[in-house]
Amino acid sequence: MSRFLSKASESLLPYTPGEQPQGRKFIKLNTNECPYPPSPKVAEAILAGYEEIAAGCGTAGAAGRAEKADCGCDAGATEAGKMAEKVAQIMPPELANLRLYSDPEERVLIEAIAAHYRVGTNQVIAGNGSDEILGFAFRAFCDSEAPLQFADLTYGFYPALCGLYGIPFRVVPLEEDFTLNIEPYKNCGNNVIIANPNAPTGMNLPLSAIEEVAASNPDRVVMVDEAYVDFGGESCVSLLPKYENLVIIQTFSKSRSLAGARVGFAIANPELIADMNRIKYSFNPYNVNRLSILAGAAAMRDWDYTKECTGRICKTREKTTEALRALGFTVLDSKTNFIFAKSGDMPGKVYFDGLREAGILVRRWDSERIKDYVRISIGSEEEMETFVKETEKLVEAARKGR
Amino acid sequence: MSRFLSKASESLLPYTPGEQPQGRKFIKLNTNECPYPPSPKVAEAILAGYEEIAAGCGTAGAAGRAEKADCGCDAGATEAGKMAEKVAQIMPPELANLRLYSDPEERVLIEAIAAHYRVGTNQVIAGNGSDEILGFAFRAFCDSEAPLQFADLTYGFYPALCGLYGIPFRVVPLEEDFTLNIEPYKNCGNNVIIANPNAPTGMNLPLSAIEEVAASNPDRVVMVDEAYVDFGGESCVSLLPKYENLVIIQTFSKSRSLAGARVGFAIANPELIADMNRIKYSFNPYNVNRLSILAGAAAMRDWDYTKECTGRICKTREKTTEALRALGFTVLDSKTNFIFAKSGDMPGKVYFDGLREAGILVRRWDSERIKDYVRISIGSEEEMETFVKETEKLVEAARKGR
Ligand SMILES: Cc1ncc(COP(=O)(O)O)c(C=O)c1O
Ligand SMILES: Cc1ncc(COP(=O)(O)O)c(C=O)c1O
Repeated sequence: MSRFLSKASESLLPYTPGEQPQGRKFIKLNTNECPYPPSPKVAEAILAGYEEIAAGCGTAGAAGRAEKADCGCDAGATEAGKMAEKVAQIMPPELANLRLYSDPEERVLIEAIAAHYRVGTNQVIAGNGSDEILGFAFRAFCDSEAPLQFADLTYGFYPALCGLYGIPFRVVPLEEDFTLNIEPYKNCGNNVIIANPNAPTGMNLPLSAIEEVAASNPDRVVMVDEAYVDFGGESCVSLLPKYENLVIIQTFSKSRSLAGARVGFAIANPELIADMNRIKYSFNPYNVNRLSILAGAAAMRDWDYTKECTGRICKTREKTTEALRALGFTVLDSKTNFIFAKSGDMPGKVYFDGLREAGILVRRWDSERIKDYVRISIGSEEEMETFVKETEKLVEAARKGR
Repeated sequence: MSRFLSKASESLLPYTPGEQPQGRKFIKLNTNECPYPPSPKVAEAILAGYEEIAAGCGTAGAAGRAEKADCGCDAGATEAGKMAEKVAQIMPPELANLRLYSDPEERVLIEAIAAHYRVGTNQVIAGNGSDEILGFAFRAFCDSEAPLQFADLTYGFYPALCGLYGIPFRVVPLEEDFTLNIEPYKNCGNNVIIANPNAPTGMNLPLSAIEEVAASNPDRVVMVDEAYVDFGGESCVSLLPKYENLVIIQTFSKSRSLAGARVGFAIANPELIADMNRIKYSFNPYNVNRLSILAGAAAMRDWDYTKECTGRICKTREKTTEALRALGFTVLDSKTNFIFAKSGDMPGKVYFDGLREAGILVRRWDSERIKDYVRISIGSEEEMETFVKETEKLVEAARKGR
């Protein structure tokens, strides 16, 4: 901390991301990434550029083509023109076009999202990951007069963001069994954020519960973080026409295999989206880069591929859950691409360290309530078979040790 | 504005980005983009992936290789494995790797920047455009006890960001001739941001002036926004060892032809960089996406290409400046990739509209002091020849009209 750090920044609680493996090859089950690559359409879109994607998407055509035509490639006959031409020839057009700013309105992407969820384009905003979208929403709707309420065990980034924007928050403990009781959320006087399904528990609330919370807080904003909804949850997009106070936040990082592209989005009523855009244009007008706009649009359109990937991951999740339970683990019911599990034979720290030793990274927190749990992202079938085998060894060793 | 917008957000002054042309083909001289594509090395890096770039960069190797080896491609023999394999085969490896989060420490990129400027890797932070970096710096160092001071005519995003973070600011008018007098910045009690060269004037302060400001405010942070420094300015990186209160902010958007990749960075003393990282990890730990980290690293290493592009642009700028002056324009001395110019024959609005009519987009502001100026980004030689021809026609018409 330097002596220049502002008073306001001293008390921040920065988020700690999962470990990025260095040097050694790990099976990486610690940040809820998808084990499968993104849709082949994503690569096609990036290599072909805006012109191609525009061809398959009526209204976005103009934007795409204008950008393309604008490229320095057609600079012509002079020295400088020749240089530009030479470079452009060896470079996919959209990479040459990186010289141009991205579309601040992210039209191609917003249109793909709106079409998929059957909402208006004025009901969607996109961001540099859903982390950024969460920031837009928190900053737009919360302040000392409208604090934020969320669970004690949920996405650790919520309190970090509240710190950043000086937003007071109220933490409500989950029940003993990690279910979220909605009673304290009804008519609560606060803005609310619920991750559904929740992280790190993986547990899911039915749509009716979300509806009760939205209905009972008509003068507060109810945000639902659906980062993991495509793995067995049910999106509350269908509730939007009835509740003007709902903000639904999703990401391309999990079910669409694009964590590294950093694309997230929110769906809400047009007025709330306009509020969030106010923040965006005060913060970073060109917040999503050119290639990620393309990648996100292509991934959103290839719903069949997403379904195939999520289907496989759910299957692997069920298989892994069964195997762990057979080994004496408590495993919460998950509707996500990870499971939250506790060994009956060893403390969480011992299990975590044992897995790491065996080349498998998972995630664990020190906080009292969950210190014996680890969160395991669902990898490929092979990875999970290795994971189960290594777990068997650790359980056996723990049982012998006693 | 919805009824849910927080009190704190009502008074925001969101930034208005330059127009993104739709439908019609324009010569786009309104957002200071580079007319030339990025270095061929950028495309190579994106298509080859982290393994390739690691090979050329000792210390980053481990990170690069671990990511690569981690890819779902080697998932193997099952159904799911086959699907992943099939997709991976038709996709450049780094596009398949988009399923993985980006390195939150952006090692490959930070190392390339640090090597180029001969500073430590702990003296560099990267962001989603320098707009994001400005946000980190403002939020880290400014608050009601440490307000921010800047010029009346400078980058319009500064007051927008102050609004977002509730930072009080003091605006100091430029002199009549648009030079920045450093007297009001000496020992001023505020944090300071100076764009050098400045936008939209294009004018440059000598290093000695920046040094005087830094030296006279030892207990305040002096931020220097060097977005345009590669077009004839002199970076104050050389002053860093002497002044622990200096923060230098740069971008890949202008001289490195990567506006659409969204990469910016700051160089400062390690403690100040640590402060800015505190903000980043409260805001968006994975703030730069995978492909832009690669693109930025490759562009930073290809300094010869950057020099070639900036050299051509400076030449075109001087030629355009002469031509406009010959047509009776007042043109400020520019050390950037744009010029700020006023016709002797017509109001700024008439000139702006005339250019637009002729298919040329430039930028103009309504504020009293500069309403007769337009800001013209330097395009390719051909584009600027067209621009001068159209300007000639407009001047002729204006003279006839009188
Ligand atoms: C519940 C939840 N919300 C949001 C995110 C953020 O995802 P991203 O910023 O990659 O979109 C995560 C990431 O792990 C998460 O677990
Ligand atoms: C003075 C100045 N600083 C910073 C920026 C931001 O650039 P970027 O966010 O693309 O890095 C600009 C862009 O026009 C600028 O003019």
